[in-house]
Amino acid sequence: MVWVKNREELLDNATSPLTRKAREAAINAVEAAINAVDPRRAVKSKVSLSGGTLRIGGLSFNLSSFKRIIVVGGGKASGSMAEAIEEILGSHIDGGAVVVPHGTKGNYKTRRVELHEAGHPVPDEDSVRGASKILELAEQAGEDDLVICLISGGGSSLMAMPRPGIPLADKQAMTNMLLKCGATINEINTVRKHLSMFKGGQLAKAAYPATLISLILSDVVGDPLEVIASGPTVPDPTTYRDAVAVLKNYDLWDEAPRSVRRVLRDGVSGKIRETPKPGEQAFKKVHNIIVGNNRVASLAAERELRRCGLNTLFLTSFMEGEAREVGIMLAALAREVKASGSPLSRPCGIVVGGETTVTVKGEGIGGRNQEIALSSALKIKGLDGVVIASFSTDGVDGPTDAAGAIVDGSTIDRSKDMGLNAVEYLTNNDSYSFFSRLGDLILTGPTGTNVNDVSVIVCL
Amino acid sequence: MVWVKNREELLDNATSPLTRKAREAAINAVEAAINAVDPRRAVKSKVSLSGGTLRIGGLSFNLSSFKRIIVVGGGKASGSMAEAIEEILGSHIDGGAVVVPHGTKGNYKTRRVELHEAGHPVPDEDSVRGASKILELAEQAGEDDLVICLISGGGSSLMAMPRPGIPLADKQAMTNMLLKCGATINEINTVRKHLSMFKGGQLAKAAYPATLISLILSDVVGDPLEVIASGPTVPDPTTYRDAVAVLKNYDLWDEAPRSVRRVLRDGVSGKIRETPKPGEQAFKKVHNIIVGNNRVASLAAERELRRCGLNTLFLTSFMEGEAREVGIMLAALAREVKASGSPLSRPCGIVVGGETTVTVKGEGIGGRNQEIALSSALKIKGLDGVVIASFSTDGVDGPTDAAGAIVDGSTIDRSKDMGLNAVEYLTNNDSYSFFSRLGDLILTGPTGTNVNDVSVIVCL
Repeated sequence: MVWVKNREELLDNATSPLTRKAREAAINAVEAAINAVDPRRAVKSKVSLSGGTLRIGGLSFNLSSFKRIIVVGGGKASGSMAEAIEEILGSHIDGGAVVVPHGTKGNYKTRRVELHEAGHPVPDEDSVRGASKILELAEQAGEDDLVICLISGGGSSLMAMPRPGIPLADKQAMTNMLLKCGATINEINTVRKHLSMFKGGQLAKAAYPATLISLILSDVVGDPLEVIASGPTVPDPTTYRDAVAVLKNYDLWDEAPRSVRRVLRDGVSGKIRETPKPGEQAFKKVHNIIVGNNRVASLAAERELRRCGLNTLFLTSFMEGEAREVGIMLAALAREVKASGSPLSRPCGIVVGGETTVTVKGEGIGGRNQEIALSSALKIKGLDGVVIASFSTDGVDGPTDAAGAIVDGSTIDRSKDMGLNAVEYLTNNDSYSFFSRLGDLILTGPTGTNVNDVSVIVCL
Repeated sequence: MVWVKNREELLDNATSPLTRKAREAAINAVEAAINAVDPRRAVKSKVSLSGGTLRIGGLSFNLSSFKRIIVVGGGKASGSMAEAIEEILGSHIDGGAVVVPHGTKGNYKTRRVELHEAGHPVPDEDSVRGASKILELAEQAGEDDLVICLISGGGSSLMAMPRPGIPLADKQAMTNMLLKCGATINEINTVRKHLSMFKGGQLAKAAYPATLISLILSDVVGDPLEVIASGPTVPDPTTYRDAVAVLKNYDLWDEAPRSVRRVLRDGVSGKIRETPKPGEQAFKKVHNIIVGNNRVASLAAERELRRCGLNTLFLTSFMEGEAREVGIMLAALAREVKASGSPLSRPCGIVVGGETTVTVKGEGIGGRNQEIALSSALKIKGLDGVVIASFSTDGVDGPTDAAGAIVDGSTIDRSKDMGLNAVEYLTNNDSYSFFSRLGDLILTGPTGTNVNDVSVIVCL
């Protein structure tokens, strides 16, 4: 499938034949990365049915041993995952419910699994309805039933069920505050799990004693199962105490809604039960299986660059930290290649994956990847044949309609010619406006998958 | 030469045999890096005298063609460079003056070149005396004389001569403000050159029509000649207008001393002449030669790791940006090695060079490299056999007596056992206190050289 809609414009923005060639390789790598983590492909790489035997990951089940098969789950990629499971299991599926973001239901065709829409990145009443439906299906499942759970990024918000006493508006306000303060997704989820009836292993508890298989498309750096979609099928190692520590660490405790503080305090004092912990009975029949992650996408990008004739290096899928600082680091790699031929001799390509954060200080519009690109552009100024592309595999970078952006050694001069001051745009967190003007946004539309971000450096 | 004084303590702090071995490789790499950029070795690698022919870099001179040879310069490494030049040229040197930091003159023995001491990182009246003496020697040099200028990091501060009308205290205040606000060394020097009678090619102008050879030990990322020690022998591409832009960019214009604003305004309006620009007559007989830089140190560290039996990778000598973010990046590399064997399979070592910055927000004591180490420790928690060492090649990281620090997968647990909260120390920019308590500072004392910082990752 071809994703980058504005490929021709991106190529035409090159100011030299060498840079055009470098842009082409980078765009090819973007396509390869997204295609490699297509949710259908991910599911089908791990699940197959033949002769009545269902194989999932390394496990084998006799299909006839299950009375009923129920499919649940949620996330930005879970609609496609549901299609893939239906294609594999067809009429063996007895029913189910999967929650996808508002406005995306029409993208998928399922016959047996109901699709629900809900809010992302902020949960809404539809998120509560979705989670409620899923919990109900899970609780109805008996000892001889199989529950297949399709988990992907965004699931935390799409499947939400606040604890009694917490109005959804308060939980939303809390989530908003955490998103804005620069907390990591791990920290955000530590809090959310303890305000929830669903997350942190509570879905698994509801499904017990059914067999539960969770197919997980990882959108969290390092694939920690308990963090992805807040780990509804995974024991929760975090505690009420940890949740309080996160709020205090970001100076949010006093600002937090009263209902949130009350529940967290009741949790710390033992009035409310902790989320299910490792070793509990509920997890005896649970199997959590990663079907795709950032490394798969990054390695596909690397393979594509190699196919384009470049020397290649995949550095890490653990990239984190402030986006603009990561941009400087990517530029540092390109500059060394140009100066000394280390770590690779030209022509070459380097791939870095992960998920950065943006501490918003300005008033502009932008995203993590667009900030990475803008920051790196300032540092590769003047280098011919050097291109850096950074993008979100879900096609939606921050609150924008772009997946990311692409820059090269002439980006800053081109922007100056247009009267744009790149440093001011960066300072104002206004990378989207900057790249809109330049025509250097990477536009894919929503891709239906989500394994975080990939950055590609090409030096010819 | 052996530099790390507390090697045994650093090894004994390991909590497993594997980590101890990793620490040993990292410490060996520290030693190798510093030794590789010993200023005497650097000078002697580029300068030789035989049979009356003086060879410097790619140039050859008949020694008898010069009436007099004068040695000038300044910087943290320039004392050793002067010793090396005296060892090569001996009695052919007619005199000279080189400025070194306060308290370091006793470290060097020179016969013909006078050593002066002055202030660093903030210039003082001795910096003015030193610069004045050097300008005097340069101006006295005639068409048939050779001026050898020994430039190294710190030269900007050690050789200072404010423009008339700017009290040194005002220039000091300005420098302090720039150092604190997170400005890059390029930006700081753009301002300093335009407040100076010495920097930005003005020493070369004074030496003209003598032959001028500048031997430069680079302490600036990417070795831009015009930036190192503020480029006293290099045409200045920056303008008064640029200097004003730096102050405005960091919101320092209104805070800047009145004398500084007056001179900059007079410069912009043309009342004061610009620093000498590329193409001017004064540079016809000037040769600027890099004798050592960060890449030389980083590659030596890499070689040493290879000698220890590790797979190795030298990534870049261009690392810049906020120290704590670079720490996250180094950890990301180690985590991928542990998770997937990319970019290298274990046992392996990765070397990254450059110079980061610290935006000071807390009240603690620390340095760039200690912050890198502390930040990375939080991200490699729990990984056995993973060590990250970050250090300044001059042995002085920030305003501390340590070169840097070393961390491993058990650092955070060790600190918890001692009642230390690593996140709080990092937030308070108090990395020195943290590592003092742990005994994990890298203590070398001043090394007499300076090619910025090197970080070493070892994964066994």
